[in-house]
Amino acid sequence: MIDSEKIGKVLYGGDYNPEQWPEEVWEEDMRLFKLAGIDIVTLNVFSWAALQPDENTYCFDKLDKIMNLVTENGLKVCLATSTGAHPAWMAHRHPDILRTEFNGMKRKFGGRHNSCPNSPTFQLYSVRLAKKLAERYKGYDNLVAWHVGNEYGGECYCENCEAAFRVWLKQKYGTLEALNKAWNTAFWGHTFYDWEEIVVPNLLSEHFEEDRTMFQGISLDYRRFNSDSLLKCYEAEAAAIRSVIPDAQITTNLMGFYKSLDYQKWADSMDFISWDNYPANEDPYARMAMNHDLMRGIKGGKPFVLMEQTPSVTNWLAYNALKRPDVMRLWSYQAMAHGADAVMFFQMRRSIGACEKYHGAVIDHVGHENTRVFREIQAMGKELEVLGDETLGARGAAKIALLADWDNWWSVEYSAGPSRDLKYLDELFLYYRALEEQNFQVDIIGMKDDFSKYQVVLAPILYMTKGTVDEKIRKFVQEGGTFLTTFFSGMVEEHDLVVTGGYPGRLRDILGIWVEESDALPSQAANHFSYKGTEYPAVLLCDLMHLEGAESESFYQEDFYAGMPVWTKHHFGKGNAVYVGTRSNLEFYKRFLRDLCEENGISPALETAEGVEVTERLKEGKSILFVLNHTEEAQSVRLEKTRKDLLTGEVLPEGTELFLAKKDVKILKEL
Amino acid sequence: MIDSEKIGKVLYGGDYNPEQWPEEVWEEDMRLFKLAGIDIVTLNVFSWAALQPDENTYCFDKLDKIMNLVTENGLKVCLATSTGAHPAWMAHRHPDILRTEFNGMKRKFGGRHNSCPNSPTFQLYSVRLAKKLAERYKGYDNLVAWHVGNEYGGECYCENCEAAFRVWLKQKYGTLEALNKAWNTAFWGHTFYDWEEIVVPNLLSEHFEEDRTMFQGISLDYRRFNSDSLLKCYEAEAAAIRSVIPDAQITTNLMGFYKSLDYQKWADSMDFISWDNYPANEDPYARMAMNHDLMRGIKGGKPFVLMEQTPSVTNWLAYNALKRPDVMRLWSYQAMAHGADAVMFFQMRRSIGACEKYHGAVIDHVGHENTRVFREIQAMGKELEVLGDETLGARGAAKIALLADWDNWWSVEYSAGPSRDLKYLDELFLYYRALEEQNFQVDIIGMKDDFSKYQVVLAPILYMTKGTVDEKIRKFVQEGGTFLTTFFSGMVEEHDLVVTGGYPGRLRDILGIWVEESDALPSQAANHFSYKGTEYPAVLLCDLMHLEGAESESFYQEDFYAGMPVWTKHHFGKGNAVYVGTRSNLEFYKRFLRDLCEENGISPALETAEGVEVTERLKEGKSILFVLNHTEEAQSVRLEKTRKDLLTGEVLPEGTELFLAKKDVKILKEL
Amino acid sequence: MIDSEKIGKVLYGGDYNPEQWPEEVWEEDMRLFKLAGIDIVTLNVFSWAALQPDENTYCFDKLDKIMNLVTENGLKVCLATSTGAHPAWMAHRHPDILRTEFNGMKRKFGGRHNSCPNSPTFQLYSVRLAKKLAERYKGYDNLVAWHVGNEYGGECYCENCEAAFRVWLKQKYGTLEALNKAWNTAFWGHTFYDWEEIVVPNLLSEHFEEDRTMFQGISLDYRRFNSDSLLKCYEAEAAAIRSVIPDAQITTNLMGFYKSLDYQKWADSMDFISWDNYPANEDPYARMAMNHDLMRGIKGGKPFVLMEQTPSVTNWLAYNALKRPDVMRLWSYQAMAHGADAVMFFQMRRSIGACEKYHGAVIDHVGHENTRVFREIQAMGKELEVLGDETLGARGAAKIALLADWDNWWSVEYSAGPSRDLKYLDELFLYYRALEEQNFQVDIIGMKDDFSKYQVVLAPILYMTKGTVDEKIRKFVQEGGTFLTTFFSGMVEEHDLVVTGGYPGRLRDILGIWVEESDALPSQAANHFSYKGTEYPAVLLCDLMHLEGAESESFYQEDFYAGMPVWTKHHFGKGNAVYVGTRSNLEFYKRFLRDLCEENGISPALETAEGVEVTERLKEGKSILFVLNHTEEAQSVRLEKTRKDLLTGEVLPEGTELFLAKKDVKILKEL
Repeated sequence: MIDSEKIGKVLYGGDYNPEQWPEEVWEEDMRLFKLAGIDIVTLNVFSWAALQPDENTYCFDKLDKIMNLVTENGLKVCLATSTGAHPAWMAHRHPDILRTEFNGMKRKFGGRHNSCPNSPTFQLYSVRLAKKLAERYKGYDNLVAWHVGNEYGGECYCENCEAAFRVWLKQKYGTLEALNKAWNTAFWGHTFYDWEEIVVPNLLSEHFEEDRTMFQGISLDYRRFNSDSLLKCYEAEAAAIRSVIPDAQITTNLMGFYKSLDYQKWADSMDFISWDNYPANEDPYARMAMNHDLMRGIKGGKPFVLMEQTPSVTNWLAYNALKRPDVMRLWSYQAMAHGADAVMFFQMRRSIGACEKYHGAVIDHVGHENTRVFREIQAMGKELEVLGDETLGARGAAKIALLADWDNWWSVEYSAGPSRDLKYLDELFLYYRALEEQNFQVDIIGMKDDFSKYQVVLAPILYMTKGTVDEKIRKFVQEGGTFLTTFFSGMVEEHDLVVTGGYPGRLRDILGIWVEESDALPSQAANHFSYKGTEYPAVLLCDLMHLEGAESESFYQEDFYAGMPVWTKHHFGKGNAVYVGTRSNLEFYKRFLRDLCEENGISPALETAEGVEVTERLKEGKSILFVLNHTEEAQSVRLEKTRKDLLTGEVLPEGTELFLAKKDVKILKEL
Repeated sequence: MIDSEKIGKVLYGGDYNPEQWPEEVWEEDMRLFKLAGIDIVTLNVFSWAALQPDENTYCFDKLDKIMNLVTENGLKVCLATSTGAHPAWMAHRHPDILRTEFNGMKRKFGGRHNSCPNSPTFQLYSVRLAKKLAERYKGYDNLVAWHVGNEYGGECYCENCEAAFRVWLKQKYGTLEALNKAWNTAFWGHTFYDWEEIVVPNLLSEHFEEDRTMFQGISLDYRRFNSDSLLKCYEAEAAAIRSVIPDAQITTNLMGFYKSLDYQKWADSMDFISWDNYPANEDPYARMAMNHDLMRGIKGGKPFVLMEQTPSVTNWLAYNALKRPDVMRLWSYQAMAHGADAVMFFQMRRSIGACEKYHGAVIDHVGHENTRVFREIQAMGKELEVLGDETLGARGAAKIALLADWDNWWSVEYSAGPSRDLKYLDELFLYYRALEEQNFQVDIIGMKDDFSKYQVVLAPILYMTKGTVDEKIRKFVQEGGTFLTTFFSGMVEEHDLVVTGGYPGRLRDILGIWVEESDALPSQAANHFSYKGTEYPAVLLCDLMHLEGAESESFYQEDFYAGMPVWTKHHFGKGNAVYVGTRSNLEFYKRFLRDLCEENGISPALETAEGVEVTERLKEGKSILFVLNHTEEAQSVRLEKTRKDLLTGEVLPEGTELFLAKKDVKILKEL
Repeated sequence: MIDSEKIGKVLYGGDYNPEQWPEEVWEEDMRLFKLAGIDIVTLNVFSWAALQPDENTYCFDKLDKIMNLVTENGLKVCLATSTGAHPAWMAHRHPDILRTEFNGMKRKFGGRHNSCPNSPTFQLYSVRLAKKLAERYKGYDNLVAWHVGNEYGGECYCENCEAAFRVWLKQKYGTLEALNKAWNTAFWGHTFYDWEEIVVPNLLSEHFEEDRTMFQGISLDYRRFNSDSLLKCYEAEAAAIRSVIPDAQITTNLMGFYKSLDYQKWADSMDFISWDNYPANEDPYARMAMNHDLMRGIKGGKPFVLMEQTPSVTNWLAYNALKRPDVMRLWSYQAMAHGADAVMFFQMRRSIGACEKYHGAVIDHVGHENTRVFREIQAMGKELEVLGDETLGARGAAKIALLADWDNWWSVEYSAGPSRDLKYLDELFLYYRALEEQNFQVDIIGMKDDFSKYQVVLAPILYMTKGTVDEKIRKFVQEGGTFLTTFFSGMVEEHDLVVTGGYPGRLRDILGIWVEESDALPSQAANHFSYKGTEYPAVLLCDLMHLEGAESESFYQEDFYAGMPVWTKHHFGKGNAVYVGTRSNLEFYKRFLRDLCEENGISPALETAEGVEVTERLKEGKSILFVLNHTEEAQSVRLEKTRKDLLTGEVLPEGTELFLAKKDVKILKEL
């Protein structure tokens, strides 16, 4: 994160595009920013065409003016490299920069995030522009962060990508023998004798739908390659900036659980994480929380920047309802509750043309401050000034980790069988939500992270056991940890080849079970089982498993596998390995995981009514509780110790019954 | 319209394709036409391939025979130029004539309406053929009308269109600076430095769905350009005919509210309007009425030709139900009730091969006259002879105008936000239907038409205020008119750029309101309000508005904007400006508009039971009422003055309780 | 079929792909095969890339090893030619082998069944490989059958196909005049003046959806051409094998009612029929039965091979439920009940990579025999040894034939109008199911088959009366047969041109009716009629017909055609012609057809409870009953004569009440 000592308070601002407006509007913007307590702007996100009108000409005059204006007005700057959309002339003269779609059609100029990552033209000019920007603006002290590209994403299937894919494969596999083995090309006689025979996996080759492939190994490698290709673009620009400004703080705006990019790999190349949070009004708050926790988790728990959110409406949903009063504030604090040290908006002034003109903004089309939305933004700005640096740099202290892994996400959803309803995030979210809605603190970690910091590691649908992750799990349990996984786990190794010898493969000894078969249930069907006296449904998949050391208390009640165990627990070394062989409902997970936490001595941050979220962050050894009332009614919570209300300054003694209006927030620091 | 004095009665006939049949069938056709009272045939609609077997050969022998045959049999002729489908050899030798689809794929030969409007080949040969036809058949006195092309429509995205689009843009904008400003290309850095950089907006460039674009300005201009391109094809053929026959009556068959072509612009180039009416059996009758009124309205109220309708079934619906007994007659008279002076069918004899062989026809596959359908056609033919010229040339005298505008249609449905359920025609139809089902006479007019003829002008969803239309509205209201518009109005000017300074933009002073925000409701959700003691739903969009001179009696009952006005009325000059800030149901519109009409002293043509439609036309100062019973039961109406039944000759004194069997029709002329 | 005297028992085995496994696994496979009673394996299905690494090199070493291994282990072999998927190098170096999709996109390498049938490369190398295999392995006595290609199917629309289509058309039509007439190209002016002007009918030319075409004649011919093209590939390989091994038994695995290929034409070129049966668990058993009966019927009743079925799960359904216990056995015997002399699985050992790794197998990923699935396979293997040759070569003796015809299937579903819900197989299945679920024995025959063997011929939706089939029907009825057809019959001749003069065309005199019109009902709507005191619905289409000699007892009860006949019977010569002018429900068909059978003195094989299927086969004059309990409950049947239980050897006297557990099977031979 941008160094919290330097910034002194939660940064507050957003994307500012003065180049869409005549200069006479700029001064009015400055007045309104001041009024709203704005202290940072992201500039230059989509200015490539303006900055570089042809191959050899660069024109920074307007950007200079803008930089000087905001600097004079005391604003900090997050400077974008502007490579999120290439200029029309570049596409016209150098069509290699255009992407080819999944269906094999070459694109023409249009849209944004439109550059082929393996285009020589893109690689040349994007890096050159980043360097020129660094050289020109390195002297600005208020330039606190660099924003490379914008919302990297998508895929390309062009000939340059095809060629680069072959190079990537050569580096990965060394020989065609290794590749043929990894992809199991003996199946359907797909053996490759020459690297040139390999083509991109898309609708014209191995796919018959976006997520339906005939060769999982090829498609999976293409996902990895595509994520790496885009990452290389990011890294090349970042390196160019760093070559000029060695201590530059560089980021790009991520998008939470975004499937196309392996953010856990990207995080290594980013100085701090920033991301764009665009929930729908009706999303459960745990959904946003899970995204925040992922964004914090991929950088080892470091605070992040909420780079974009809308002050009021979005424009791209089917029904773009208004954010209700106080919701913008509530969700801003929720970001901070999960680790944000900056709260920023898209956009500062609402565009008048093209597809985002009905997206919410700090300054609406009416142009003045007398709007509901501006008043809410202004009030929040004042509060953040009051709050100062109290929460900056705080860290979490979760004892529970949830394992998330892009290779697993990709491979589970490429799988042909057992059920098309099997979605990686659905499973993760069921477990996460059950914990989050009970105020258990959770870190979302990757396979490479340290498990030993946690008492409980949950790895729902750990389909692919990459590398030696089974060793790591084995050690974690043996040394006393509690590990949980589910159906469709341990099936394959890293090339999506089945681990033979009985499911769940390399996890079998740890879990003490053998899964003989797995029954896929149609979407409305259910089996049932009982847990601690209550009956729960078993849906989606029902594993037919045999105990090999594990124990169980719940058994299927119906069908020919009635009496077989539904979930199991295996005492292994000093710890426990738990396996849940089916999907149940949220009520089951809440009960089951609460029991699991209790067994491990883990308590919620605070006991609250449903819909009141509490997270705990630690700063210099002191606990800060964020209490967020997501409900439509007033709520109260009872303080477990004496705390100070950071927004009012009031000291609240232990046992205080603290009242929260609907959508209200409290930030409570341990004294 | 074809001169009513010359034709003497409502023309009755249809598309006749003898070229699909051996000559021995033709004589039988003549016998059956006579039996059915047919007096006009449309010939030569799809004969290009027959007339021109290669670049330089033309062969009119068979057409000569056909022309002579129908002439000898006393039939009038509407002669088509046959350019609605190009020959296979032309596509093979000159592929520039083939269209490119929205997804970028170049088409091969097939189908119809298949020529690229910017194809040099098409332009050359279509015009040459039209001229040759005019030269050859100019001497036929019975050739009463020319039918250019056929059902013009669709779009092309080929390279010739791309080049022509650039030329069109140059003519429109003059400079790239003006174009960049109009399209707001500073957004996402789309600035164009050279005209050659501009590409067609389709799935490969700015669109991600047919109606979802990233640059509204570009996509909107392409719609205008495409409509103009096809219009130029029509005009070029028309000019060729006129160069030979200066007083030729030239038309092409339109399709009612057809989105791709701006018929208000086309109408200027057409001598009379003709159109094809293909409702589904379950369509509300007001839907057909609205199409008829549009077709009459685009040519300033002049009578039109019903060029095509099916005598019984269509073949292209999912379920092609039979037209029930008497429905063909009912709908034919409905066309006349709304301004038709000719009633024609597709097709005279049912084809035996290809995709329209199960489309209804006057002469069925069985080949004789002993069918239900033929008997109905024959009876109608007799009636039209009885009717004579009584209704020819009659005009409407509506005091209410409904504003329809293609630019608004296009731009509303390209809008990204606020709601995907926002459909231009849906809103128009709600207002139209509420009036039509109460027998209020409505004209459908365009922005360029004279408002001063009307007491009430309704302009639902007047999203785009082009040119000085606001001035025209301002003057209309100031001088005593009543103007109504709705949510999502006044938002943008003609390039789809938002009018800043507060919604509804240039209409704000006229309406006396400020719309601060607009809440999009999910498809099943509703707010509510009360009007004159009854509660109505508010759905789709709820405007949050402030009164600035206007008044209101209805207020939202729920949500955080409860108490804000739902609709407003502003006394402005001598008139009133009404704003309806949400969508409600048909019951509300019926009540609300009836009240509005009453305030303006406007009465229905006749008070009837639900489902009995009445329109009024005036001929030489006399009122003609068309009474149409669309219900499944017998109905009666009470005559408000003495009238003559034009189909029976009976004189009906004022106060007569006139009985109509189910699906029956009366045409009643003021004495 | 493979000669039943040579094989001695029902063959039992499946697809075996040892090339996917290291050799150390092979010996274990042999042990497990022996354990399971496996006696045949299909080898080499997807080994083209392995056998031919480049244009001129062939490498049979591994296949030699495999052949020797299975031979030494006493297994019979069905040897595939391996041309179901071409090598990657071939696609890379000779792209003509790649198909072009229906949307016009050229494919890249990937998938299987991927070769263009008109590719010179494919034609050259596929035939050469087949011949080399024959030469190399002709000496193996255990090589009992040849398996050419694999699941032939799909379409190609490339330039080579386009050129070949023109040649095919020239051979069929001789002149363009004949072609223009057959396709009715005068419609929409599609006249062709040169063969080169003809293009493939796809999304870029005459189609707007897969099954929606603007020229039925062209699209229909392309289906015929495509089926013929693939058949020529099969025939060329078969000829190559036969040139080396004159008495080779050659087949390819068909897929039941597979729309793209006219299997009735294919059957002539196949020595015996084999097919792959992949029902979903929830399919009615009559659906599978109908496929089996088709497969038996296309080869005149000869026994066939069940080439593939899954032992447990499939992997490509949305929800891949496990086959319940005993279902694999039940369905295996059902195949035999309908004519199979071999029961085979896909696959012997479960793959570890690519898209079929979760498809069921004899040997699961766990690798040992201790699984539910293996135990069931093993038990079935034992039973088949007990059964020996008792059922081999048995034939059916149905008195009822159901007419199925690919040209009808294709043309009905290309029809534009009257209803999109009109599906050829749906209608066939309604009639078939009504008979099958009452244990009436049915043969499924083609238009060329002998009708005189049957007492009843059912031809639902005989839309197209090809050639002189009406003569054949006329003669069949005149000589005493009962013929039944339905709505939408007799409409067109073989080019899909309507037979004028009154529906149902050439069948009109036989049926003694005239169908004047046909009303298409929306999906939820129904008319009603009464049959023998019970009311039934009339849905989909309601014919409005006039009696011309026929009689009726059921009449529409609603709408304007109330009182018109619903179905008719015409005494014609010594027989009867029945016409059913609407679709009703299964209950109606069961009652109606049972009555029809009774009138013809036809009885069910056995009277049973619902869900108990009985088929009868005859061997050397003795009746063999297969009794299959498809229900979830125990059932009993009463024997109508003394029979021997072939699986237990027990003799069961006439009148025995025979008990069957749920999913159980009895095979009962007349003594």
